[in-house]
Amino acid sequence: MEVTRKNYKDSLNTVYSAIEEADFLAIDGEFSGISDGPNVSALTNGLDTPEERYTKLKKHSMDFLLFQFGLCTFKYDQAKSKYITKPFNFYIFPKPFNRTSPDIKFICQSSSIDFLASQGFDFNKVFCHGIPYLNQDEEAQLREQTEERRNQHANGGGTPSYISPSSSKSPANVPEEHKDFINRVIEKVEALFSNSEKTLDLEPCTGFQRKLIYQTLNWKFPKGLHVETVETEKKGINSSHVFCVKLLKRKLQLVIHAISKSGKLVVGHNMLLDVMHTIHQFYCSLPEDLQDFKEVTMCVFPRLLDTKLMASTQPFKELITNTSLAELEKQLKDTPFKSPQVETAAGFPSYDTAQEQLHEAGYDAYITGLCFISMANYLGSFLTPPKAYISARSKLIEPFFNKLFLMRIIDIPYLNITGPDLQPKRDHVLYVTFPKEWKTSDLYQLFSAFGNIQVSWVDDTSAFVSLSQTDQVQIAMNTSRYAESYRIQTYAEYVQGKQLEKEKLGQTVKSWGEDGWVKSHYASSTTSSGFGKRSISPVQGEQGSGEPLIADGWSHYSYPDSTGSKKMKTDGVCKRMRTFPAAA
Amino acid sequence: MEVTRKNYKDSLNTVYSAIEEADFLAIDGEFSGISDGPNVSALTNGLDTPEERYTKLKKHSMDFLLFQFGLCTFKYDQAKSKYITKPFNFYIFPKPFNRTSPDIKFICQSSSIDFLASQGFDFNKVFCHGIPYLNQDEEAQLREQTEERRNQHANGGGTPSYISPSSSKSPANVPEEHKDFINRVIEKVEALFSNSEKTLDLEPCTGFQRKLIYQTLNWKFPKGLHVETVETEKKGINSSHVFCVKLLKRKLQLVIHAISKSGKLVVGHNMLLDVMHTIHQFYCSLPEDLQDFKEVTMCVFPRLLDTKLMASTQPFKELITNTSLAELEKQLKDTPFKSPQVETAAGFPSYDTAQEQLHEAGYDAYITGLCFISMANYLGSFLTPPKAYISARSKLIEPFFNKLFLMRIIDIPYLNITGPDLQPKRDHVLYVTFPKEWKTSDLYQLFSAFGNIQVSWVDDTSAFVSLSQTDQVQIAMNTSRYAESYRIQTYAEYVQGKQLEKEKLGQTVKSWGEDGWVKSHYASSTTSSGFGKRSISPVQGEQGSGEPLIADGWSHYSYPDSTGSKKMKTDGVCKRMRTFPAAA
Repeated sequence: MEVTRKNYKDSLNTVYSAIEEADFLAIDGEFSGISDGPNVSALTNGLDTPEERYTKLKKHSMDFLLFQFGLCTFKYDQAKSKYITKPFNFYIFPKPFNRTSPDIKFICQSSSIDFLASQGFDFNKVFCHGIPYLNQDEEAQLREQTEERRNQHANGGGTPSYISPSSSKSPANVPEEHKDFINRVIEKVEALFSNSEKTLDLEPCTGFQRKLIYQTLNWKFPKGLHVETVETEKKGINSSHVFCVKLLKRKLQLVIHAISKSGKLVVGHNMLLDVMHTIHQFYCSLPEDLQDFKEVTMCVFPRLLDTKLMASTQPFKELITNTSLAELEKQLKDTPFKSPQVETAAGFPSYDTAQEQLHEAGYDAYITGLCFISMANYLGSFLTPPKAYISARSKLIEPFFNKLFLMRIIDIPYLNITGPDLQPKRDHVLYVTFPKEWKTSDLYQLFSAFGNIQVSWVDDTSAFVSLSQTDQVQIAMNTSRYAESYRIQTYAEYVQGKQLEKEKLGQTVKSWGEDGWVKSHYASSTTSSGFGKRSISPVQGEQGSGEPLIADGWSHYSYPDSTGSKKMKTDGVCKRMRTFPAAA
Repeated sequence: MEVTRKNYKDSLNTVYSAIEEADFLAIDGEFSGISDGPNVSALTNGLDTPEERYTKLKKHSMDFLLFQFGLCTFKYDQAKSKYITKPFNFYIFPKPFNRTSPDIKFICQSSSIDFLASQGFDFNKVFCHGIPYLNQDEEAQLREQTEERRNQHANGGGTPSYISPSSSKSPANVPEEHKDFINRVIEKVEALFSNSEKTLDLEPCTGFQRKLIYQTLNWKFPKGLHVETVETEKKGINSSHVFCVKLLKRKLQLVIHAISKSGKLVVGHNMLLDVMHTIHQFYCSLPEDLQDFKEVTMCVFPRLLDTKLMASTQPFKELITNTSLAELEKQLKDTPFKSPQVETAAGFPSYDTAQEQLHEAGYDAYITGLCFISMANYLGSFLTPPKAYISARSKLIEPFFNKLFLMRIIDIPYLNITGPDLQPKRDHVLYVTFPKEWKTSDLYQLFSAFGNIQVSWVDDTSAFVSLSQTDQVQIAMNTSRYAESYRIQTYAEYVQGKQLEKEKLGQTVKSWGEDGWVKSHYASSTTSSGFGKRSISPVQGEQGSGEPLIADGWSHYSYPDSTGSKKMKTDGVCKRMRTFPAAA
């Protein structure tokens, strides 16, 4: 179903009920570009830490526009033994709300635009009929501009004010005698979110009550509301006022909000950028800190699964040669996998996987869902007795939850959203700095005595060089002691140097020790591989800790103790996001 | 005529002959945005100097894409007493030439995109079928990448090399015995530009001759050529080679080149940004210095006329209330003006001004041309006897040549491309710095004792304040002497301060005295108003110095002595642009 500015309002209830009834959801985004840095390979160094990768993606990928958001809902029909799908294609464009609202600029990357154009992407639909949006920061900017205008025309009539997310850090302290009044307001506003009305007139009130309303709405509904004061009678400046609460109309936030609220499993393919863009564009500017990003992510998408990560993990890793979405979908049609039984819901245009419509977000979401079903059902074949259908709520797939595929990192396959990240040993890695004339061949020559090496360029004058044997590291260090044109550091020295640099720059570096994470980071792995026996009992499957599944094949990682994965903090980011509750 | 990647090659000859036969040309561009700065009003301070304005536009407007280039040719048919027009719409998109060619990023501004979308602009045509282009710098980048690849695969076959503009600063020193050979090559390459062939195989030659060819082609044809060395026989690395000269296919440069070469008058409406974008996108990155920009402009567009500047100048100024293109076109249909007689050439879709197709570049170019004709013919009514038709070569319009309208500058109406800019007296202007909380009203209050003021914001904490009377300046300065929250400087002090700042930053500041410009800058005006008498004889009209026409109504400017407008330097920029000769 195509959703644009023209039919957005009328489609919302269809979207809401599709989400509500679904067993799981699949999403995909199409962007106007990938990297505004020099090139994608510079963006994805093979030895990035998760923090570095996040920082780079945040810096170089967020000024592009997510202009098509695909959602495909999957509901299992027991009677038919098949999934009923409802695919949606949301076209998105930051059409300015009015002359003073933020005039958003976004970057287009020729290669990305050219690629989408070659796939028949309809840019006119995006730019002419895209659904507008604002994130919190932009709403705040709009509010500031509105207030400034009000100050400049101090004797004007209406005094619109946008809800400020920055002032919503604590709940309003509502005196006992006003609680009933304020609760009635909250009820009415909550109803506004679920019905098709766009505005709500509140009863006249005193200045103090007005202040309480502002404070409370700020806290309860950090976005999507616009509170306007309208004069009841032309009595001049001191007349009584009526509040008018408006929903900022036609915003994609409402869809994201519905996805969050549902707590349903959200499946994507190589979805880190999709998640980052969705949050950045529709919720808030991305936080500086990776840990804060993880917390925001858990608020917006409480349960994620990345099919690229799943396909790269045992038991799929050995069976799947190419994990790109199109190839994965093809391979999952063949033995030992089975094409899932699906049917498009009545009234929705059906996709035919034989006629590839790749890179339409709705279609990509659809086949991502198919891939997930095939892989999940394949896991059922290991049960005794085997099960042909594995639900999205099965314990079997839990090991894949909230682990987002990290592109081209040699030794960290995923970003762990709900806990500390993997800390691979990098004691065979050297950090080499050299004149900018050097090429890869110079590095091969320099290390020719140390057998096979792997070079990961950092920038023009430095690279990581991974030796095949750790015991060669000290020899390499020794031979380089008197070198003048280049310099070698161990990976540990490099990390330490960066840390010192940060501290010099006056940045507050998080003391990881404080919350007990460091210990878990360096705890040696106690998990053993799980899928080696190629069969697990249903009891095991339903009760497994999850670690064995994903750890297999990556046994050289030091895994954080699984008990160390602390629960989401309930203060901070999530507290401000009452309208994006984590799934129960 | 719509020109896209699909029909570009076949259309080139039609474009060439339309330019060749035309009396004058009109151009217009559509961009993906205007300003990536905070807002347009910050971009256009009312007291910018031409240098400041150029620097701001260069900084904040050049990362947008010129994605539609409109050209309308006008040829006067004596027999029919009307103009025959040929309008073209070129769709432009920097589709990467190959996987290693520059992946150009451009910014889109929501408000601009939304505006064009509302006018029915076809973005799909741009992104799917736009004509690709590279400017010199991007070609150089492509060349570098190609060379790097060649170095990495040193034993490969063909050794492509892109002509380097940076190495083309001086002509090759061709020994006598090779001159015939090299001249034959140049002739063949020149023919390549005007015929429909895309490649040219040159005769086998020695290594030294090959070097001469590279050097000569570099110098003669700084862009649009790709020289490739192809092995004649598989004799290994040291075999003889054949040169292959390729035109980088389907590039809009060829059209711009044809316009330049024709030396025809090029008319535009408020055309500074159009000119800047055209040069930036199809010729070279814009120079830092305004004077260098003027020189490049004269090479690419040797004769320009801005209809917005013309309409804002006597004798039109008093008759035209609104100089926006659409309004101007309407007003020029009424007395005392006459709608021009025009006819679209056979085979070209005809525009109907009653059905406005504004903001399609070809249409805007078309009505810009109509406006020029109406205004030019109106000038003929002042002749004795009056003339109904004034040609694009008439001396009457010369006063308007090469003066580009400057948006929203209070006292400098135009950028003078062929000479020094106007230097208005700004001795009634104060530069005020203050806390960032201050608003316009605070400034009005501060200067309330000094009558009417005009405020031009510079940034959050500073603004120019123009007093109505110059003799108040000293009083204002005196009263501010002990102020702590704000600070006042005269305009002269402000300019001096900026100059010092520049010098401190180690930037080389051009010593204007050296080439005698300073004197002409400060020479007092000796010109008198010309159109006061509302009639000039044809002799005056054909012989006028040009200054009187444009000076009228701006008598408070100190005009540079017209003899001070030095001729274009023949060294430097133009020398490198042998393929963009200034009009004879």
